[in-house]
Amino acid sequence: MKHKNETSTPPVSPYLITRTLMPENQETPLNFLLNDNTPPSYFYRRNHFPYPKLTKQSFFLPITGEVYKPRIFSFQQLLSFPSRTVKVLLECAGNKRQLFIPKVFGEQWGAGAMSQGDWKGVPLKDLLQYAGLKYTAKEIVFEGYDWGLMPGISTPLYYARSLPIEKALHPDTIIAYEFNGKPIPFKHGYPLRLIVPQWYAMASVKWIKRIKVIDHTFKGQFQTEDYVYYPNEDSDEGKKPVTIIHVNSMIQQPLNLSILNQGIHKIKGMAWSGYGEITRVDVSTDHGQSWTEATLNASSRSPYTWTNWTIDWQAETKGEFTIMSRATDSCGYVQPIASQWNRKGYGYHAIDKVNVKIQ
Amino acid sequence: MKHKNETSTPPVSPYLITRTLMPENQETPLNFLLNDNTPPSYFYRRNHFPYPKLTKQSFFLPITGEVYKPRIFSFQQLLSFPSRTVKVLLECAGNKRQLFIPKVFGEQWGAGAMSQGDWKGVPLKDLLQYAGLKYTAKEIVFEGYDWGLMPGISTPLYYARSLPIEKALHPDTIIAYEFNGKPIPFKHGYPLRLIVPQWYAMASVKWIKRIKVIDHTFKGQFQTEDYVYYPNEDSDEGKKPVTIIHVNSMIQQPLNLSILNQGIHKIKGMAWSGYGEITRVDVSTDHGQSWTEATLNASSRSPYTWTNWTIDWQAETKGEFTIMSRATDSCGYVQPIASQWNRKGYGYHAIDKVNVKIQ
Repeated sequence: MKHKNETSTPPVSPYLITRTLMPENQETPLNFLLNDNTPPSYFYRRNHFPYPKLTKQSFFLPITGEVYKPRIFSFQQLLSFPSRTVKVLLECAGNKRQLFIPKVFGEQWGAGAMSQGDWKGVPLKDLLQYAGLKYTAKEIVFEGYDWGLMPGISTPLYYARSLPIEKALHPDTIIAYEFNGKPIPFKHGYPLRLIVPQWYAMASVKWIKRIKVIDHTFKGQFQTEDYVYYPNEDSDEGKKPVTIIHVNSMIQQPLNLSILNQGIHKIKGMAWSGYGEITRVDVSTDHGQSWTEATLNASSRSPYTWTNWTIDWQAETKGEFTIMSRATDSCGYVQPIASQWNRKGYGYHAIDKVNVKIQ
Repeated sequence: MKHKNETSTPPVSPYLITRTLMPENQETPLNFLLNDNTPPSYFYRRNHFPYPKLTKQSFFLPITGEVYKPRIFSFQQLLSFPSRTVKVLLECAGNKRQLFIPKVFGEQWGAGAMSQGDWKGVPLKDLLQYAGLKYTAKEIVFEGYDWGLMPGISTPLYYARSLPIEKALHPDTIIAYEFNGKPIPFKHGYPLRLIVPQWYAMASVKWIKRIKVIDHTFKGQFQTEDYVYYPNEDSDEGKKPVTIIHVNSMIQQPLNLSILNQGIHKIKGMAWSGYGEITRVDVSTDHGQSWTEATLNASSRSPYTWTNWTIDWQAETKGEFTIMSRATDSCGYVQPIASQWNRKGYGYHAIDKVNVKIQ
């Protein structure tokens, strides 16, 4: 028997999920979005400050500091250089923060502070080569146009981050000017955004104002205070910087706490890691007692993106079930049962869990 | 010192929060929406089934059953009858379901499955009078055009609910054809929607197909199975139907788990009850040890809507704080410390709580 009333008008839209509005922090409805490249309107937004104002100057990018020939590149010049396009997943270091127990203060991100697409731009190494790195060069600092006040700090700050030389020289670290074949949307860094594959997205500085090569370790708010793992509540002991994306996975369907029919259900999700490709995803429907290997979608495999996976589940008996997903990457990293708690709530990557009821 | 970079372009938008897409269930971003009447694009959407298809017939409303003169009213006729406009809050019975502990299956609504505005239409009592109620009339059944399958039930169902005679005859129970001065948006029941002030919104049937007066107690899925409080996990003992909206409140600002500066913060929220007007709201910033009466916004007081409230909080010391809000209505109902758990997760109305960190 077929029941046909699914010709809904108008079409359904998932929209973004707001965590704060001032500044704007909104996540992608990833449970509902099965696209390969995230459309710009659904790309998650993570801001520390209000959106900056652009001027004519924003279309000129200076490189200064420990270089032989300080340079200022115009936007037009950058467009004329040999380009590189990389498909890159950007994940907020605070993604899944709401899952930490005990709860951690800050934006309560679910699993959607993560989006991906094709970024086109000029390899940073080419620009650094034009300027000529001195041997004293130790780190490269990127300053954005976004600035403002933060709780507990009396003077305003600009957003700024540094990269170590070797990551800066990687051919896939680019100064991007296009996203998915169009100029980068303003809210995502137009006109120029640094794209650092494999690192959490705090490294991919938006609205780049200037690049400075320095001969020491950069000490900025977003480098030495924020975006640091502090494993202890009351002391800074054992702290270490947030860098590479942890091996991780999420179950997109079914939804947590949903009620389903008896029958075959397709369990769908994604898995990703900054350490390498996803090599396998295992799924359990009995709370981790037994695991079955899911099918990876070969066409979604790419060095810096998520990999889609799927598995059919024959739900024969009524009752409550816990579905779990566990990803493994090419470096051999496997998602842990629990993610190490840290005071600012970064890098959550425990095995994903969803509870469902079959009735 | 003034730091002026708040001239964000383009403007921020809160959007809806999706809970499911098929059918479409999305909540209003109430933490960010401070409007009196909810704009249609931000009105929460709660569907049991796919959106129905309308036909010419959808513009004719029959009243049959225990009446002297069965009638069919055309949409045009209804527009010509004396109208009534009521400002009504609609709240999903599952609003705040995600706060129940233990967790309850079903759409995981936060506090935004709730919206309000001006509904204009014809009092239902006038229509019943045209048809002439027989003395055998006991309940009025409203059937919507929406239908489909549900987990665990093998045949498709129409959405239908009944009202007892006395609620049906209340002058503010209307067959609405306008929302906020315009035709009701399709997703909210166009062309005709029953509006039942003071009851949870499952009673306000959308896309009304027909009205039937019956001489017995209606036994529909959404009357005797769903929208019933079951206080026990394993038995139906003590069950009772969901009807009137519980006294309730929510803290809109500050956000839960946010990090704030030392200084004066405006705590803002709303309070509502189906039992009468909100007479006071008390706020605690010390986890319920002491309470201070908040200021009610007189202009937002109206019999069937939420009341906005506000209070200034001088946050002098650094540390973690729990802010709580507790509403009282004109019937003397006060929000409890804990909301009675029930198997399907309806009517959550415990004192609202928000944790913040001052740094």
